[in-house]
Amino acid sequence: MPAEIKGLNEECGVFGIFGTPDASQLTYYGLHTLQHRGQEGAGIVSSDSKQLYQHRDRGLLAKVFADPNELKRLVGDSAIGHVRYGTSGHNSIANVQPFLFHFHDGDVALAHNGNLTNAVTLRRQLEDEGAVFQSDSDTEILIHLVRKYIKEGFIPALKKSLNIVHGGFAFLLLQKDRLIAALDPNGIRPLCIGQLENGAYVVASETCALDIVNAKFVRDVQPGELIVIDRDGLHIDHYTTDTKLAICSMEFIYFARPDSIIHGVTVHNARKQMGRLLAQQYPIDADMVIGVPNSSLSAASGYAEESGLPYEMGLIKSQYVARTFIQPTQALREQGVHLKLSAVRGVVAGKRVIVVDDSLVRGTTSKQIVKMLRHAGAKEVHMLIASPPFKFPCFYGIDISTRSELMAAHYTVPEMRDLIGADSLHFLSVDNLIKAINIPDAGDAPYGGLTVAYFNGDYPTPLYDYEEGYLKSLNEQEKRARKERLS
Amino acid sequence: MPAEIKGLNEECGVFGIFGTPDASQLTYYGLHTLQHRGQEGAGIVSSDSKQLYQHRDRGLLAKVFADPNELKRLVGDSAIGHVRYGTSGHNSIANVQPFLFHFHDGDVALAHNGNLTNAVTLRRQLEDEGAVFQSDSDTEILIHLVRKYIKEGFIPALKKSLNIVHGGFAFLLLQKDRLIAALDPNGIRPLCIGQLENGAYVVASETCALDIVNAKFVRDVQPGELIVIDRDGLHIDHYTTDTKLAICSMEFIYFARPDSIIHGVTVHNARKQMGRLLAQQYPIDADMVIGVPNSSLSAASGYAEESGLPYEMGLIKSQYVARTFIQPTQALREQGVHLKLSAVRGVVAGKRVIVVDDSLVRGTTSKQIVKMLRHAGAKEVHMLIASPPFKFPCFYGIDISTRSELMAAHYTVPEMRDLIGADSLHFLSVDNLIKAINIPDAGDAPYGGLTVAYFNGDYPTPLYDYEEGYLKSLNEQEKRARKERLS
Amino acid sequence: MPAEIKGLNEECGVFGIFGTPDASQLTYYGLHTLQHRGQEGAGIVSSDSKQLYQHRDRGLLAKVFADPNELKRLVGDSAIGHVRYGTSGHNSIANVQPFLFHFHDGDVALAHNGNLTNAVTLRRQLEDEGAVFQSDSDTEILIHLVRKYIKEGFIPALKKSLNIVHGGFAFLLLQKDRLIAALDPNGIRPLCIGQLENGAYVVASETCALDIVNAKFVRDVQPGELIVIDRDGLHIDHYTTDTKLAICSMEFIYFARPDSIIHGVTVHNARKQMGRLLAQQYPIDADMVIGVPNSSLSAASGYAEESGLPYEMGLIKSQYVARTFIQPTQALREQGVHLKLSAVRGVVAGKRVIVVDDSLVRGTTSKQIVKMLRHAGAKEVHMLIASPPFKFPCFYGIDISTRSELMAAHYTVPEMRDLIGADSLHFLSVDNLIKAINIPDAGDAPYGGLTVAYFNGDYPTPLYDYEEGYLKSLNEQEKRARKERLS
Amino acid sequence: MPAEIKGLNEECGVFGIFGTPDASQLTYYGLHTLQHRGQEGAGIVSSDSKQLYQHRDRGLLAKVFADPNELKRLVGDSAIGHVRYGTSGHNSIANVQPFLFHFHDGDVALAHNGNLTNAVTLRRQLEDEGAVFQSDSDTEILIHLVRKYIKEGFIPALKKSLNIVHGGFAFLLLQKDRLIAALDPNGIRPLCIGQLENGAYVVASETCALDIVNAKFVRDVQPGELIVIDRDGLHIDHYTTDTKLAICSMEFIYFARPDSIIHGVTVHNARKQMGRLLAQQYPIDADMVIGVPNSSLSAASGYAEESGLPYEMGLIKSQYVARTFIQPTQALREQGVHLKLSAVRGVVAGKRVIVVDDSLVRGTTSKQIVKMLRHAGAKEVHMLIASPPFKFPCFYGIDISTRSELMAAHYTVPEMRDLIGADSLHFLSVDNLIKAINIPDAGDAPYGGLTVAYFNGDYPTPLYDYEEGYLKSLNEQEKRARKERLS
Repeated sequence: MPAEIKGLNEECGVFGIFGTPDASQLTYYGLHTLQHRGQEGAGIVSSDSKQLYQHRDRGLLAKVFADPNELKRLVGDSAIGHVRYGTSGHNSIANVQPFLFHFHDGDVALAHNGNLTNAVTLRRQLEDEGAVFQSDSDTEILIHLVRKYIKEGFIPALKKSLNIVHGGFAFLLLQKDRLIAALDPNGIRPLCIGQLENGAYVVASETCALDIVNAKFVRDVQPGELIVIDRDGLHIDHYTTDTKLAICSMEFIYFARPDSIIHGVTVHNARKQMGRLLAQQYPIDADMVIGVPNSSLSAASGYAEESGLPYEMGLIKSQYVARTFIQPTQALREQGVHLKLSAVRGVVAGKRVIVVDDSLVRGTTSKQIVKMLRHAGAKEVHMLIASPPFKFPCFYGIDISTRSELMAAHYTVPEMRDLIGADSLHFLSVDNLIKAINIPDAGDAPYGGLTVAYFNGDYPTPLYDYEEGYLKSLNEQEKRARKERLS
Repeated sequence: MPAEIKGLNEECGVFGIFGTPDASQLTYYGLHTLQHRGQEGAGIVSSDSKQLYQHRDRGLLAKVFADPNELKRLVGDSAIGHVRYGTSGHNSIANVQPFLFHFHDGDVALAHNGNLTNAVTLRRQLEDEGAVFQSDSDTEILIHLVRKYIKEGFIPALKKSLNIVHGGFAFLLLQKDRLIAALDPNGIRPLCIGQLENGAYVVASETCALDIVNAKFVRDVQPGELIVIDRDGLHIDHYTTDTKLAICSMEFIYFARPDSIIHGVTVHNARKQMGRLLAQQYPIDADMVIGVPNSSLSAASGYAEESGLPYEMGLIKSQYVARTFIQPTQALREQGVHLKLSAVRGVVAGKRVIVVDDSLVRGTTSKQIVKMLRHAGAKEVHMLIASPPFKFPCFYGIDISTRSELMAAHYTVPEMRDLIGADSLHFLSVDNLIKAINIPDAGDAPYGGLTVAYFNGDYPTPLYDYEEGYLKSLNEQEKRARKERLS
Repeated sequence: MPAEIKGLNEECGVFGIFGTPDASQLTYYGLHTLQHRGQEGAGIVSSDSKQLYQHRDRGLLAKVFADPNELKRLVGDSAIGHVRYGTSGHNSIANVQPFLFHFHDGDVALAHNGNLTNAVTLRRQLEDEGAVFQSDSDTEILIHLVRKYIKEGFIPALKKSLNIVHGGFAFLLLQKDRLIAALDPNGIRPLCIGQLENGAYVVASETCALDIVNAKFVRDVQPGELIVIDRDGLHIDHYTTDTKLAICSMEFIYFARPDSIIHGVTVHNARKQMGRLLAQQYPIDADMVIGVPNSSLSAASGYAEESGLPYEMGLIKSQYVARTFIQPTQALREQGVHLKLSAVRGVVAGKRVIVVDDSLVRGTTSKQIVKMLRHAGAKEVHMLIASPPFKFPCFYGIDISTRSELMAAHYTVPEMRDLIGADSLHFLSVDNLIKAINIPDAGDAPYGGLTVAYFNGDYPTPLYDYEEGYLKSLNEQEKRARKERLS
Repeated sequence: MPAEIKGLNEECGVFGIFGTPDASQLTYYGLHTLQHRGQEGAGIVSSDSKQLYQHRDRGLLAKVFADPNELKRLVGDSAIGHVRYGTSGHNSIANVQPFLFHFHDGDVALAHNGNLTNAVTLRRQLEDEGAVFQSDSDTEILIHLVRKYIKEGFIPALKKSLNIVHGGFAFLLLQKDRLIAALDPNGIRPLCIGQLENGAYVVASETCALDIVNAKFVRDVQPGELIVIDRDGLHIDHYTTDTKLAICSMEFIYFARPDSIIHGVTVHNARKQMGRLLAQQYPIDADMVIGVPNSSLSAASGYAEESGLPYEMGLIKSQYVARTFIQPTQALREQGVHLKLSAVRGVVAGKRVIVVDDSLVRGTTSKQIVKMLRHAGAKEVHMLIASPPFKFPCFYGIDISTRSELMAAHYTVPEMRDLIGADSLHFLSVDNLIKAINIPDAGDAPYGGLTVAYFNGDYPTPLYDYEEGYLKSLNEQEKRARKERLS
């Protein structure tokens, strides 16, 4: 639940497999390794070549499948699965994916990681033409478009539809006899292909999900591609050739698991390198380097190594903070009760401490960390952020409720330093970020093939529904759907 | 859970209220009295004039709202609710009503009691035109039709749609500022209107739901009517005038609560009269009359009174048989372990017993009852059924899986008597059934304004999807949807 | 849950079986038929001759064993079970029986129906001698006494202990190789013995539990008996000969199932006879007789038959009132919202109605019933109670919180009639109660072998802890344990 | 749930607080930080000076108090709490602490961390004298002893009892007006005292629990002490002076949280020092040092720093492995599916890797880790254990089911190396372990005030029930209770 700490949430992970017994069980393990990408809901749809079977519910994967019979019911040799981060709280089981749609000419299941930038516009058009939506999710738009053009055949209708939706998206579709994957023209969300020893193909958001099912990495899905896997094997097609790689840099900074390899780059190595370059950029005279567990430990050890300072465990994180945890009263919180993080008094007391954190969003956690360390006796607290200041919202699948919550959008670095109470505050530069990640196959793509719009406002796509001014034309319900990120 | 005993299941009850505080709480109590019409799911949608709020889940009402906050969340002064009997097992939360549909031009909630006879045909057409269905329920067809014609305005589109769907139906719709009710052209399902002291209107499947909220009975909804209730009051309109009353006789025989009054007839009184006429039709020389609890007690006491024989409690029914109950092993069942019913040895031992039951569907329960009574020492067991032999399926909302399960469709009365092991077996005649119910305002409608097709095969409407021969043209999925009642 | 309506609660039912496969499953079915004796907790302990296995929890039997594996775990060919009504709310799982005690010289399980009158005194003595109690239940006292004398051997220690405890009690004990039953010297609580075809013995609170497992009735356990069942068969012994039958009359009036046979009397027949004698005692000029479902239907049909008036269904009872049901607000309740009972308007409107109820405790329900019937249009409401006025508390296992709650202890019959708002109110006389039940083997026992102390204050035993004056000597905790029934 | 990985389990953590509002809520947060000491059950008993209130259940703290009302019910200004690791599976709610005992002369609650070595003997004696035990726990023996001597007064009876029980124990007792703590004569289990700003005293297993409630550390409880906290403040007493510090070394090696300070030693610092001394003892020519997350990261960073090798993240641990997780099939496990740990291919591929682990018990995890790293491409895998070989069982509260499971009890180091498949295997020496921990106030206590019996067999106390030969005299039930650790 990094949400509470970070205010950053990846919206979802996907996993698909075709052509092996135990397909749903392998999907379950694949989703397990992608759980960090979404903890609010999980589901699997399987196919036995005749019929599709679905189970999904709110909550963590282990809870959704707490009754093992639910998994056993999902028979067949192909499956897709989804873990979800969702903002719209209460009654959202309708929003838990994979979606399963029944048609007289065959069922279709759909799972999605990403966010469409023209969803509101498209939904309004479709509803005026008779469409009835069953979820609040922009994911559902794809299937309505496909059905609109279904008389042209499924694959042509899908290709046409993929050219109509815009934004960042990685779609998996399952029909009774094939698995389909599609990635947006900028490859904003990661998606990779692997293969089991028995020849079955796997598609997943991150390579860690290939590892757990013992699948060999085959290749990353490329921008604009449409991958079809059926009894005849893997077919690589594309729905557009107007593509340019711009993968989300936050995957490397914060979201992806350290053991995942994205476009050839091991995430832990990229993070350690961010720490090293940060140390070059801002060498500090201090007694030790500590990381904010768990996501900043790679960067912190990189900083420590580069600076030659000892790497210590100055903060520890509880493994036992559950959703149902009873929150401390205001009074207790003011006394410093923090359920998730604790400072290690015996390590930091009397010391000058460099804290490395991977990112700074709202600043609330940083402020608590500084307070906690000083309370534990730290003489100096230097906050070093292994990414640039986060100033602009993401419209491609990271949940930042509104721009107003981004501390760096409203304050200078010295102001932020004072607000969080640190002795100093420093951020990695955009150039060093790109240099640290260093995607080998970026070619001539701008920013080394990365989306760095969160730091410099240069978005790789038009924003459609999110353009300034568009807001005024929406009714209340549509505004809620658009989540008003510009305000 | 009469299902296990009877093999007959009403598919649903509906309740709506407009213009009073505590709308959702009153709906909750209304649904409580309609729980006998469906125990597999329940839900409520409320409106506060700005927005609709939904909660629904599988299980009994008390379970669905086990957390009272769920009910409190449903704010506003109007609401509709639904209790559901569902055949499609597992993942059916998508099928639990009221459905709630979000459109950019306003939300609509929908609850339905009944069954459409041309649902498969309509769904195929709509899907070919681009529609994406979210449930297996035929109910959803109505909203797709309405959206198809939405440019003509909501009410005109609704009227047009109600002329396209066929079968037995009682629909409730809730928009943010009005409540709408519509009944099929034969009034096959019951629907009545009441009014609270504060002027708020109530619409419900049975009058028992008016009583519990202290609403005064206003009138029954008539065939073909479209009722609109808004801030200006009650508006009685119709979408067709081609109507003829043919209310389902099984409502009187078995489904409705004894205290409900349908088209002027108190259900208990009708049942008692069925018992009286049965006694006239078949006087038997015996020591006592007993009823099968609870649904047959009215008819049994009528039989006893008419015959002058003592009315005894020869069978008792457990109040504690839950869904989760562990079923006896085959061995135990052969030893006569019956969880729901027990014979009262001290009453029936050595006696000649007349058992009055309301209906005989598959014959399984009757057979068990005869066995149980003989095991408890009864010298003779005469089975008297207070309705005619059930030979033809219902296509209007009673769940009889297939015709093959109807005992009377395959055997003569003497054969049935031998199969269940009774000393004698007798059924009420169709004429006496009509005479016992005796709807005052039936006018010149055939069969006294009743549907008695289950007994004589004379259906009040064309059967569309259920016509013999149509079956061959369907694919597997559509056959499942149609539930193949003719086979 | 008759508790809410009646204010009377039997404390528990017991079931034991020895020497048959599926012992725990048969116990489960036996307990199912005894569920009316207690709905707050249930449990089973089984033995496979080597070890005892326990499962127990709060709630109804079906909930306690909702996971069927819990029942499968209870292996072995003997078992005892218990259903419990408990007053002490919250954390009472420690109070759910059967208790299971582990000793280095062998385990013992214990289940109890009844109440000890010297429990507080004995517990204080035992604690002063070093005893550590694990429950609030007086049941546990027996095992502490047995252990106190264990050096004399188990059976001698048990006999000695049974002479030290006083009150009304039916104990079942299970050791790894035998089942033991003991009944108090007045036989206040019912307990009977049956036998399966395979020779296995069954002991149960009521004969309905013998019926469901297909056991043949052998005999009632007699006052003062100690029954031991082991591999060698059934051994009838006694721990005292100073006995006199005084079985609780409320078992016949209200608690026991109508199909149970207690000391040769079928409960339904006794109740019907109470109704007949009530009709003789108080003939009323009215249009119909109705009963309060379900417990009063036998008496009501007896009254109807004797009086020649029609027996109608004027009140119906919902099957769906669950523990978790959301209670109506005060405003709704004043509008007459009653979840459990409804008047049948079409039956009672304009009529003079005789309502037969089995008993009147606090008067709250009677008042509601009168109001409800008048609201439904009844012209006259005559309340006829098929038992005498309830004036004195029960100390033998019926939960009447305090004497102050007994309406008849504080008002004359005319006052009560006015308070409940009936046109007339009449009670069966004690003599007619005894005559209606008419226990064949009562011999020269006073009051026909019945405890009628609730009506005339003549208790069959000394009251020890409940004597007036004793109260003052207790501390707060002991007072709670004694439940201050005299106040 | 380190159990699955390690085969080592601390049995419990305790927390108590006296004299502050929100006592139960502070206890809840204290227990949260002690959750690593026991995940099988949790409970709190509070006192409002008049009465004690209890809630306890199986499962994690967050689950036990998932309904926040359970915590609110625990009113009062003092409380004790407990988290439990339990071996006896199923029906163990009776074993969840704190125990609450009701006596006519006042209630007592009891929580315990540790294990008694003469529990079986004492229980047999007590049962022969009439005692009835309610749990399988040896904890309960204390209260039976206290009651046996209660006529001498509570504190004298407690002191006498503490001299009768033997082993490792830290007891907390709560009465309505005081909190009592007692530690065994060797101080085997840790226990410390803190104080809130408002003067309220806190007693806890580890200092991390003082930190979260913002309590200032006062002192460690010393061997043989009896601490009484009441309205008059803190009273330090002792029940014996025959004491010698021998705190469990496994607290420093594995169990305690890195931020806890025990007898003046910060646990993280001790572990880092173990890593440093291990690097001095066994310098290895390799490319990197990695730790087994999370418990070995301190030692691994110490090894890295001392050796000058880079510290890398070569293994990562999932945060999402829940109790209910569906285990992989054998086939999947052979394919290397490991739910908890993953190797980071991009880090270890082609490298010579030093893995630092804190301990090696059964060897299963080490074997998996080596396999996993080789599968991810590691060229060499050197396993360095930051503690000595674990050869002898613990009888003081660590759960090692039997000696037969201890790999080092049966194999030489080279044999173990081959069994786990590592290129080399090395252990820290006992001397270096003592040197690394270095308790400042150990005085002349052997082994620097540590229990190192697990490594050298030199137990600080006699073993009573666990002596070789004693086993033969026990019956089956007692053997289960003793858990046969010598076999």
